[in-house]
Amino acid sequence: MNSTIPHPYYPRTAKLPGYVPNTLSMYDCLAWVGVPVALTMGLSLFLLRQRKDLTTREKCTFVWFAVCALIHSVLEGYVGVNHKAVASDQSLLGQLWKEYAHADSRYLTSDPFVINMERITAFCWGSLSIVICYAIYHNKPYRHVAQLVVSVGQLYGDILYFATTLFEGNPHVNPHFFYVWVYFFSFNFVWVVIPSILIVRSWQHLTKAVARCQHTDKKKTK
Amino acid sequence: MNSTIPHPYYPRTAKLPGYVPNTLSMYDCLAWVGVPVALTMGLSLFLLRQRKDLTTREKCTFVWFAVCALIHSVLEGYVGVNHKAVASDQSLLGQLWKEYAHADSRYLTSDPFVINMERITAFCWGSLSIVICYAIYHNKPYRHVAQLVVSVGQLYGDILYFATTLFEGNPHVNPHFFYVWVYFFSFNFVWVVIPSILIVRSWQHLTKAVARCQHTDKKKTK
Repeated sequence: MNSTIPHPYYPRTAKLPGYVPNTLSMYDCLAWVGVPVALTMGLSLFLLRQRKDLTTREKCTFVWFAVCALIHSVLEGYVGVNHKAVASDQSLLGQLWKEYAHADSRYLTSDPFVINMERITAFCWGSLSIVICYAIYHNKPYRHVAQLVVSVGQLYGDILYFATTLFEGNPHVNPHFFYVWVYFFSFNFVWVVIPSILIVRSWQHLTKAVARCQHTDKKKTK
Repeated sequence: MNSTIPHPYYPRTAKLPGYVPNTLSMYDCLAWVGVPVALTMGLSLFLLRQRKDLTTREKCTFVWFAVCALIHSVLEGYVGVNHKAVASDQSLLGQLWKEYAHADSRYLTSDPFVINMERITAFCWGSLSIVICYAIYHNKPYRHVAQLVVSVGQLYGDILYFATTLFEGNPHVNPHFFYVWVYFFSFNFVWVVIPSILIVRSWQHLTKAVARCQHTDKKKTK
């Protein structure tokens, strides 16, 4: 095992000592992510059947954070802990990361920003995503506060994720259309779009609640 | 001008083409940061004299965000834009950054994470800090929402700032006690402590407001 073992990642000069090619195909990998995500969505909808008073919007947000909890805690948590060994890792999660790394080799080279962002995402946003699901289900008053915190964290982390590699001229992605636009852009851009929408909604909801309290307090003091 | 010009920064192998030593002393630099910060605090307190109904806590928060607006927009904004030329920059702000860079040479080497984090800090948290001052002064209902967003952003950015260099074994700081514990640790740790306190306060304030609204709505439907 040495750094001269050929590998398919970009930049082509990246040193990946101990690299072992995947035994799983691209389709296997996509299925191993897609099926657990679909199961989580199904299980969420099954749980939500008992809460008929929740709006469709609230149910969608529950499903979103259930999926976030799964991806942040399991997938991103794994690379946060095992980043040093991913290049030679033949476990299921190791192979999933080697597949994704075609779109970003920083996951195989222990990039300080990527790994620390993933650790915070897994630990903070992963656990808080479960708290938000619980809060939506039980209509807890801190629900929108937690939703705002996690969505700001996800959006900030994702913008930094894009910005840091684009700043260097995007050297970490395989320039093939599929890796650039499906893996790198689309998979990550979801965490720009949905958190942005949720930030606006929570901002409006919380501002309205404070305005109502201020209005009530003004009436009382008159 | 070439990369072999000797420089005082760490790691000692860092390449800083065109590096020009500061003409300002350390004390000059500290004064050029300290005096504008003190003036901003004084001006804030002067403005707040007209708002006798605000609590001491609210006034302190106003002063904090006024200082944040200054530092984020001017100091951090400058390096976000001019990062490529800082090593040879003899302007006042350039020299301030060369002085601070004893604690973190990433500011002189256009580190992708540091520069992009500073750009977001300057643009988003800098401008929103001004909005929060306005919101505190005029008791706007979105004040705590904006405070929560900015404080989460500041805390997340600062934790990543510490984590990314510690992850590499802290190679970017001059190991002298003063640079490690005053510049690197103390100057930055302020943005861990105060945002953490403000997150807790805003979380409590907003949750209470939502709980009050839920309570009122329940009463109405009964």
